[in-house]
Amino acid sequence: MNKKMVAYFVGRVLRIEAVLMILPSLVSLIYRERSGFVTAACALATFIAGYLLSRKHPANMSFYTREGIMAVGLSWIFMSVFGALPLCICADHVGFTDALFETISGFTTTGASILTEVESLPKGILFWRSFTHWVGGMGILVFVLAILPEAAGDSIYLMRAESPGPSVGKLVPKVKTTAKILYQLYIAITFAEIIALILSGMSVYESSVISFGTVGTGGFAIRNSGCFIYTPLQQIIITVFMIICGANFNVYFLLVARKWRDAIRSEEVLSYLGIYAVATIAVAINIRNVFGSVGEVLRHSFFNVASVMTTTGFAVSDFDKWPNFSKIMMLLVMFVGGCAGSTAGGIKVSRIMIGFKTIRKELEHFVHPRSVKILKFEGKPIEHAVLRGINVYFLTYSTIFAASILLVALDGKDFTTTVTSVIATFNNIGPGLEMVGPCGNYSEFSIFSKYVLMFDMLAGRLELFPMLLLFLPMTYKRQH
Amino acid sequence: MNKKMVAYFVGRVLRIEAVLMILPSLVSLIYRERSGFVTAACALATFIAGYLLSRKHPANMSFYTREGIMAVGLSWIFMSVFGALPLCICADHVGFTDALFETISGFTTTGASILTEVESLPKGILFWRSFTHWVGGMGILVFVLAILPEAAGDSIYLMRAESPGPSVGKLVPKVKTTAKILYQLYIAITFAEIIALILSGMSVYESSVISFGTVGTGGFAIRNSGCFIYTPLQQIIITVFMIICGANFNVYFLLVARKWRDAIRSEEVLSYLGIYAVATIAVAINIRNVFGSVGEVLRHSFFNVASVMTTTGFAVSDFDKWPNFSKIMMLLVMFVGGCAGSTAGGIKVSRIMIGFKTIRKELEHFVHPRSVKILKFEGKPIEHAVLRGINVYFLTYSTIFAASILLVALDGKDFTTTVTSVIATFNNIGPGLEMVGPCGNYSEFSIFSKYVLMFDMLAGRLELFPMLLLFLPMTYKRQH
Repeated sequence: MNKKMVAYFVGRVLRIEAVLMILPSLVSLIYRERSGFVTAACALATFIAGYLLSRKHPANMSFYTREGIMAVGLSWIFMSVFGALPLCICADHVGFTDALFETISGFTTTGASILTEVESLPKGILFWRSFTHWVGGMGILVFVLAILPEAAGDSIYLMRAESPGPSVGKLVPKVKTTAKILYQLYIAITFAEIIALILSGMSVYESSVISFGTVGTGGFAIRNSGCFIYTPLQQIIITVFMIICGANFNVYFLLVARKWRDAIRSEEVLSYLGIYAVATIAVAINIRNVFGSVGEVLRHSFFNVASVMTTTGFAVSDFDKWPNFSKIMMLLVMFVGGCAGSTAGGIKVSRIMIGFKTIRKELEHFVHPRSVKILKFEGKPIEHAVLRGINVYFLTYSTIFAASILLVALDGKDFTTTVTSVIATFNNIGPGLEMVGPCGNYSEFSIFSKYVLMFDMLAGRLELFPMLLLFLPMTYKRQH
Repeated sequence: MNKKMVAYFVGRVLRIEAVLMILPSLVSLIYRERSGFVTAACALATFIAGYLLSRKHPANMSFYTREGIMAVGLSWIFMSVFGALPLCICADHVGFTDALFETISGFTTTGASILTEVESLPKGILFWRSFTHWVGGMGILVFVLAILPEAAGDSIYLMRAESPGPSVGKLVPKVKTTAKILYQLYIAITFAEIIALILSGMSVYESSVISFGTVGTGGFAIRNSGCFIYTPLQQIIITVFMIICGANFNVYFLLVARKWRDAIRSEEVLSYLGIYAVATIAVAINIRNVFGSVGEVLRHSFFNVASVMTTTGFAVSDFDKWPNFSKIMMLLVMFVGGCAGSTAGGIKVSRIMIGFKTIRKELEHFVHPRSVKILKFEGKPIEHAVLRGINVYFLTYSTIFAASILLVALDGKDFTTTVTSVIATFNNIGPGLEMVGPCGNYSEFSIFSKYVLMFDMLAGRLELFPMLLLFLPMTYKRQH
């Protein structure tokens, strides 16, 4: 293992984080909050740590899968530890574990909160909290491509560890140019939402913070009542942007490249919209008596289903109080999640689709043993390695899921809280049901459970394997 | 599709069932119950139906996968429909849906009951109810091998559809001889338990009925209080036989063949006992304060964990009242189930073990990309087809599981009841938590939910595919 290279990588990431922390300090400056000094001091500390780790260029720059996985996993952990400092120092009653939970929840774009009350926190702190969504949403990958050009030849390994979804697809060739376009798209979408929200009458500050939460599919709210108090128009704007950000960014590439035909034919995005539409209609029919008018019913189902399917986790109503069928439907779309190549979490639509196709092929083989069919996705045959990857993903996913539920169960919370807290963190959504429902939070869990859920958030965000490898002895064994 | 051959097959199975129904009629005769006449009449009706279907030998005896799957699926459904008649006619307030639910639950060795009260039912009816466990436990396969010798060359297809577990393994060669040995083993174990229970002071009738439920890993009790009232010795006897019947019968073959060394080395059985031991100890520690003494704690955890892991479903205490960790542990071992090649349901220990090995191999590949390892199980390399089968099984399992939960959720029951009713029926256990806990039952569900759960019981018992294919249009399409 090239430990120096991993340290160098983590150091570069921390330096970037330090620069990003200047932004919340400036916000505090505007609002004349003392917490700005704390954030600025934390930024300095982060920079010094980053500088110490990446002071010297390692002589040996070789960087393989193992190093890539270690670097990605450790970067997220270190970023979260340093990112947790402002909240830990500025907020009374928030200890280190809670601050770390909140920051991991931020960077992993989960949005699960341990805060029972947010409105009293300084605006700069809340800004940073939501900004972690925005930063995490795009993944450290894109940063890395800009700051670690020396390893560019091997950056495919990082991509494998971090890209959300089964196949890197069109992103692989010319990875740096692509990263730049991704960057620009991401920023453009963010600004579009900020402007739309400002036009709808929201303040610049609140528009920005909510947009960070939407585009990163994170879901931290800055009001104790979540998104309940926003106007219908504002809620619709947020819904539309959640759906946009849960779709595969490949489609936006294609749109930018004016390949209209390819863009509208994306099998994954069409399936994503199809699942979303079916789930929304089913929920709307089920909750038809919960709200006064058809318009209300549709708005609430459109918003909340989009919120959990894109794994954002904003809420405009307490769906924990909805009829059982709607709650279960919400939980099922939490597992589905958004598209691969988006900022969303969950299993991802493409994996689900390929899973269904595999089942269909097997059933057809039972009925017509001599028929030979080739599995296709997005019009192309699915490579054996991708299928194998998906199968292993499902197995690993189920294993981590079961183990997490068992460990969190030690806490003695009720069945629904236990199960949905794991669903909501592992799939990077945020709210679950009962104690962790849209009107609840994660503060009541034991420290042990909080660390289990932190692991789940990181494992879910990094497509399982980096976090798993980080904790397995085999990673540190010498190769024979 | 060779429909005549399928009908012939189903007819032969019904004729066997008719003969088996004479036994409960005789029991009623002993106890001078009028219901005996009803059961005898039902046996006659079943025989006539069977005779009409299998009167003529089909000219074309060809029997491929599709026919095998259809024949197995339809046989279970027809057996259940005719088997439900005695209960439906003799028990007041039990409609056809409920009687069918109870009988499917019997033949699939689930043990989920819609009866709120069993002690008032005639002894002959209760005998038949438990006897369906015994009949179903071994599967109709063994019958089929005796009654359908003409198709013996193709009986591998039936095996594939019905044998519980990923690989038919040692059962394939000389399938008829093997079936005979299985038969004898099964009967021997049943008699051993009956004798042990009689020696412990239980009546001959009760010993027989409880043994049918144990050996078939079914779990219908004949007392309203389940197995709560049995003496500690009787509970220990039942526990031991549950564990014996959840193990792979291949091991008993090996013991009969005096291959001691191979028998004690069975990877699946050792894993099965290992998982059982770990789960029992974990539960025992967790419930240490629920019971008065260490002996009590151990007996309750030994019994109840064995009961759910072997998917039997007897209970000696209401584990729904246990601490949350124990409940979740019980639910997790419900998914594991017993060994392949046993009468148990669930995913099966061998599939779980192979799943873990697959994950391990993938992780090693990440760390050491050039290493080449071959997956082995029971000391032999795992064939690609088996791995593929397991992957498809997991995908299909998850899909049916999710769809069932969604459909049962329409019923509006609480989250825990909804989820655990599907877990308990799909894995052929019986009791879940809350309303369907060890002291509850399935009577409160809507007719629609009951049919969904019946589908789950059959799908779970028949390794998913037969029931799925029976309801898919593709099965009935002509081959191109």
